[in-house]
Parts: sequence; C-alpha cells; structure tokens
Amino acid sequence: MRLRVEPLPQPGLRFDDVVLVVDVIRATSTATMLLEAGARALWLTDHLDKARRLRQNGEVLVGEVGGLKPEGFDLGNSPLEARQAPVAGRVVVQSTTNGTKTAHLATQSAREVLLAALLNAKAAVQEALRRAQKEVAILCAGKEGALGLDDLYTAGVLADLLQQEGLTPVGDATRLALELCWHYLDPQRVLPLSEAAQALKKVGLGADVAFCAQVNLSSRVARLKERQGEALVFEG
Amino acid sequence: MRLRVEPLPQPGLRFDDVVLVVDVIRATSTATMLLEAGARALWLTDHLDKARRLRQNGEVLVGEVGGLKPEGFDLGNSPLEARQAPVAGRVVVQSTTNGTKTAHLATQSAREVLLAALLNAKAAVQEALRRAQKEVAILCAGKEGALGLDDLYTAGVLADLLQQEGLTPVGDATRLALELCWHYLDPQRVLPLSEAAQALKKVGLGADVAFCAQVNLSSRVARLKERQGEALVFEG
Repeated sequence: MRLRVEPLPQPGLRFDDVVLVVDVIRATSTATMLLEAGARALWLTDHLDKARRLRQNGEVLVGEVGGLKPEGFDLGNSPLEARQAPVAGRVVVQSTTNGTKTAHLATQSAREVLLAALLNAKAAVQEALRRAQKEVAILCAGKEGALGLDDLYTAGVLADLLQQEGLTPVGDATRLALELCWHYLDPQRVLPLSEAAQALKKVGLGADVAFCAQVNLSSRVARLKERQGEALVFEG
Repeated sequence: MRLRVEPLPQPGLRFDDVVLVVDVIRATSTATMLLEAGARALWLTDHLDKARRLRQNGEVLVGEVGGLKPEGFDLGNSPLEARQAPVAGRVVVQSTTNGTKTAHLATQSAREVLLAALLNAKAAVQEALRRAQKEVAILCAGKEGALGLDDLYTAGVLADLLQQEGLTPVGDATRLALELCWHYLDPQRVLPLSEAAQALKKVGLGADVAFCAQVNLSSRVARLKERQGEALVFEG
C-alpha cells in the first residue's frame, strides 16, 4: 500500500483512497479536541459569515480572525479552549481558512477524509489503515498557498508511523517529510519555528503552539460524513 | 534584503525583484554547461515542436523525451553532453518542460530571471546579489507540480550562500531548504535520492546526476534578456 505526502493543497491534486488532512496549527488540532470534549459533529466552513448563517439550533461557533475569537463567536480556534469547552453532545461549526479549503480539496476526489494532528497522530494512522485499500495520502494545509513547516513535520510523523506499518513511501515530498520528522525528534522544538506558530505567539497565543506539539493525547479522529450545503460534516 | 524559497511553481506566485530558477536535474545544469561550452544564447521553449519551428539558421536543438534525445535534435538535455558540444558562438534552442514553465512563471512578474544550479551556485548567487534591490527569490521547478528533493536541496545551497551574505530568510519553505542543505552536506548523497535522479538512472543516465551534483564548476549564469515569440532568450 502506498503512502504519499502532499506538501501543499494545489488545485489539481487527485486522491482516490484515504486522505489525512493536516492543519496542525490549529484547525485539525482544535477539531480533535472538540471531539475529545464531546462534540457530536463538526461542521467545517471556510468563512465566518457562513458559520454565522449555519447557527440555527444552538450550534457552537468556533473560529478566528488574526488568531483571535471573532465577534459573536463562542470560542476561538484554540485546542486549549476547545478541550474544556461546553460542547458535549452539541454540533460545532468551525470556521477556518486553510484547513477547510484543504479538506474541501480532498473531498473532491478522496474516498475517505480524516482530520489529523500530532494530538491524534497514532489514532489517525490507525483509522486510515483500517479504511485504506491502496493508498494513504497526507495533505498539508500550509498557509495561504505557502508551505508550512509545522504541517510538513506533522506529515512526517504520520508518514513515519505508516511506514512502520509497511506502507511504501512514494515521492520526494514524502521523503522530505520523513527526513524532517527524523531530524527534529521533538515536536516542541520544530513547531515553534513555523510562521504559523510565530503569528500566534505575536497575539499572545504561544501556549496553543505548545499544546498542538503534544503527541497522542487523544484517540479521537474526525471523519468526513457528509456535506450540508457549503459545510463539510465531520464526526468521530 | 529578503531571501525567499518557493518550493513549487504555483500559478499565483508573484515576484518583484530577482528570481533564481532551479531545475537542477537537468535543465538549469545543462543551460549552464551550454554557456560554458560557448553558446551565444539559449532560447528556452516548453515544447519539442516549438523548438523545431525555431530552427531557422543553424540553431542547435537540445531536448529530451523520457530523458533521451528526441528525433531530429542535436543533443539530449544533458549537462555532460552539453559540456563538450560544438555550440561555440551558436544559438541553442533548449526544450524542457518543468524548467521552461517555471522560467515563464518567474518572467511574468520578476525584474530579473537567472538560471541556477549547483554547477554555478556561487556565480548565480553573486549575480543575484549584484542585481537585487530588495529580494532574491529561489523558485524550484519540481516535477509536473510535485516537489523535487533535488531542487529544494539546491535552493538550500543557494539560500545558505545568500544568508552568509547577510540576506534575511523569510518563510517556512526557506527554512526547510536551509535545513535540507545543512542535513545533507554532500550533494552527491542527496541528489540521487530524488525521483528525477531515479528516472534518469532507469534510462542509463545516472552519470548525469553525479555531474549535476558538482558544486561551483562553472562561473557562467544564464540571464533572461528578452522574449522571442514563445521562447525566453537567455544570455550569460
């Protein structure tokens, strides 16, 4: 079975089996912790206004503007906040930019889409292995079209686990991600180097970076269930 | 002054100063050796038929199909062949896919476009520094939209030289390229790992990879002079 890392969500990409979407700082980390806190479902949208329109029956709104909680939202896009949020049994509408666009791209062609982070690395890999028939692809969100060191490193951690399970790495980006994972053994060292981390630090959210850099804290994995209009519905 | 590595030729990229285009296996390595062999100018096209149409007055045709010399062409896209080719004082039409498309992308917005490889790394950096006012960008060609380990490593070597000259690295991809260059001190170790190298080895052209992995063999740098119809005209 093949293992493939895609470092950027380029429009022409095709997938025909299982895709692990990675936006480690912070969309997929937050999604994992929302499930951990008991959320019944996650509705991913790529715009704050769409999220606002989706609120009809007490849905919880999660999102960010420049790293901070937008007006009228319940929570920022923070895994630390999410962990302790009163979301048990509720539907959460999560508005993100890069993460959601990347999930949409995967959805266009993939058979299964899962949200992966370091927090749920092992669980995400296990879930992918259970569902894959010929390939597990890891699709990095990056930031507005630019490569993210944080996402590529996380892809390397996931690829390393998949390779240990006998999958065959394909392509230069896969090798690069693996090298990155082997070079930086400690995610607490590499994640803070990324632009995404530095932007958060600037607005006082450095603690979120350290939280996202924890490995295997959760066994929850968000999995694409269906679409609802413009939203992607994940459960897990 | 900024230093930026772009790992892939994504359509939306903009440049406003100097761009070093890298397609180390083999377009920019071959271009460098064609100049070294005395070529007066290089006309880059992205299609074999365009190259054929451009031959009017004894221009030398250089190109490849699956790594090998196309029918009716004078030379394959090989830096080893180029080095000893009878091109002194002549115009060479070089038909490549990834390298030429990448050069075209750079040309859309950049003020100056230079062709860089390991063979002319130091010279390319010096030329870039002479011409840059605010930024030197290094644009990797990759292979059909996929990231190339060979190009990103070469970008790292160029970025390392530029950083030593006081330029400020910007962005995660720049850091990644630098890490790759520091991790693999010997290009003869890393270039053969790339898909581009493996494809050449399969058709018996492994010697070209070893040749491309030599650093600072040439002080010639191809520089974009003008366009001629669909061709980009480089001199140096």
